Amino acid sequence: MAQILKGAPVAAALCEKMTAQTAELAGRGVTPTLAILRVGERDDDLSYERGAMKRCAQVGVAVKNVVLPANVDPEAFYAALRDLNEDPKVHGILMFRPLPAQLDGEKARRMLAPEKDVDGCTDGSLAGVFTGARLGFAPCTAQAAMEILHYYGIDPAGKRAAVIGRSLVVGRPVAMMLMRENATVTICHTRTPDVPAVTREADIVVAASGQMESVGADYLREGQTVIDVGIGWNEAKQKLCGDVRFEEAEPLAAAVTPVPGGVGSVTTCVLVSHVIEAARRSLS
Amino acid sequence: MAQILKGAPVAAALCEKMTAQTAELAGRGVTPTLAILRVGERDDDLSYERGAMKRCAQVGVAVKNVVLPANVDPEAFYAALRDLNEDPKVHGILMFRPLPAQLDGEKARRMLAPEKDVDGCTDGSLAGVFTGARLGFAPCTAQAAMEILHYYGIDPAGKRAAVIGRSLVVGRPVAMMLMRENATVTICHTRTPDVPAVTREADIVVAASGQMESVGADYLREGQTVIDVGIGWNEAKQKLCGDVRFEEAEPLAAAVTPVPGGVGSVTTCVLVSHVIEAARRSLS
Repeated sequence: MAQILKGAPVAAALCEKMTAQTAELAGRGVTPTLAILRVGERDDDLSYERGAMKRCAQVGVAVKNVVLPANVDPEAFYAALRDLNEDPKVHGILMFRPLPAQLDGEKARRMLAPEKDVDGCTDGSLAGVFTGARLGFAPCTAQAAMEILHYYGIDPAGKRAAVIGRSLVVGRPVAMMLMRENATVTICHTRTPDVPAVTREADIVVAASGQMESVGADYLREGQTVIDVGIGWNEAKQKLCGDVRFEEAEPLAAAVTPVPGGVGSVTTCVLVSHVIEAARRSLS
Repeated sequence: MAQILKGAPVAAALCEKMTAQTAELAGRGVTPTLAILRVGERDDDLSYERGAMKRCAQVGVAVKNVVLPANVDPEAFYAALRDLNEDPKVHGILMFRPLPAQLDGEKARRMLAPEKDVDGCTDGSLAGVFTGARLGFAPCTAQAAMEILHYYGIDPAGKRAAVIGRSLVVGRPVAMMLMRENATVTICHTRTPDVPAVTREADIVVAASGQMESVGADYLREGQTVIDVGIGWNEAKQKLCGDVRFEEAEPLAAAVTPVPGGVGSVTTCVLVSHVIEAARRSLS
C-alpha cells in the first residue's frame, strides 16, 4: 500500500511561505503582480485563470487581467504584450497559448521578457533549466513534480530516475531538475523500445507522456516513488485519469501521486511563487 | 577487436562538404568569416587557434584575428566584442575563455550574439540544444561526437546511450543531441552510485567526465560503441590519454574512438562548419 502523495498539503505549505513573502515585500512597498494575457474565451484558459486568480488573492499577489477578443488585430496584441513587458509594476506575465491563427505564437513567445516569464516558456527560461542558471523560470508543471518530492522528503540524490516523455513543458525540464538534485536520470520517449525495462530500474518514475493510463504494473516494481504528471478525461470511466493506472501502482509503489489531487493541484501555486520570486529579483 | 573510429576521415568528409559550401557562397558574394578574439598568449589558445586557422584556410573561410594584451582595459575588450557582434562581414566569433581576471567572463558570454556563437557557449545556443530549435550552435566537442557516429553509420535511434559527465560543454549537450536522434539516454555524474552498472546497460557510451583513464573493462560489455571525449597528458605514461582505458575497451567494444585522433580531431571542423552555417543563415 503506497503512501499517497497528495498535492493539497504541498500547496498549503507553499501558500504559507508565499503569504510571508508578500507581507515582507509589502513592507518594502512592492505588491507582486501577475498579468494574465488572454485572447478569447477558451474553457481551458478560463478554468486555469480562475485557479491562478484564486491563489493570487489568497497569498497577496495582485492580478492585472488583459483580455483581448479572439479576432484581435495582431499589432494590438503585440503592443499589449510589449506594454506588459515594459510595465515596472508587472512582475510576471501568463500568456495563454495556443494563440488564434492570425497571431504568431512563436513570435509572441520570443517577445516575452524572460525575467517576467513565470510560466517558463521562453528560451531564456529553458536555457536556465538546462544550465542551472537563475534565468527565467522553470515550467510550472515540471517544478510542481519537484515540489511534491521536496515536501514529502524524497531526495533524488543518488537515486535512479526514469522520466517518460521528452516534452519541453514537462519531460525535459523535470529530467534536468532531477539531475541538478543529483539523480541519475534516463529519459524515455516514443522511440524507446522497452520503456517498462527502463522504468523498473528506477527509484523515481515520472510519467509525463500524456498517454492516459499507459503506465501499469509491468512498468513498476516495489518500493518506487511514482509521480503522475498526466491528466485527462477518461470517457469510458467518466472520470479524470493520469498517465498511470493508479489501481495497479498503488499496491506496488512506496509512494504515488493521485490524479486528480496530485501534481496538477500544485501547479498554480508554483506559478504564483514565480511571480513573487520575480518581484524579489526585481529588487536585487 | 573493435573498429577504431578515427576522426581523420570524419574531418576529411566534413571539409569536402564545407569546401563545396564556401564555393557556393562565393558565387553569392559571401566569404564566411570567423573572428577569433584572443586576450593574451595562453598556449592552449594559441594551439587551438592554429588548428582553427588551418581548417579555415583549407575550406575557404576567412579569419579575422583580434588579439588584445593580457592586461587589456575592460572597456576596450567589451568594445572589441561589440564591434565583432555588429560587423556584418563577421559570421562567427570564437572568444577564448577563461578571460583574465580584470574581465567579466560571464558578462562577455552574455554579450556575444547567439547567431555568431559558433562555439556554442551562449544561453541562446544552449537553449537551442535543449529545445532542438535552430538557435545558435551546439558546443563543438559535443557535436564532434555526433559527427563521428553519423560518419560511421551508427544510428542512435532506439538504442540506449549512457553519457558520463554532465558538463555544459559536452555531457548535457551530447545527451540532448543523442535524445533528439531517438536514443534513450541516461546521464551519469559524480553522484551516480554505480556508473559501471549504468554504462554496461548502454549500447553507446560517451565518456565525458574529464577523469583520465577512468573508464575500464568493468564499465563495458561486448558490442558497445565507445566515444571517448576526454583528452589529457598522462605524466606516468608520457602520452595523451582519454577518459577510457583504450587497451581495455578495444578488445571488448564493437567500436571505439582513439585518443588522440578521435573526437578531438573533428572539433575544429565542427567549429568551421558553424561559421559557414552562420553565413548561410545570414542570407535567409
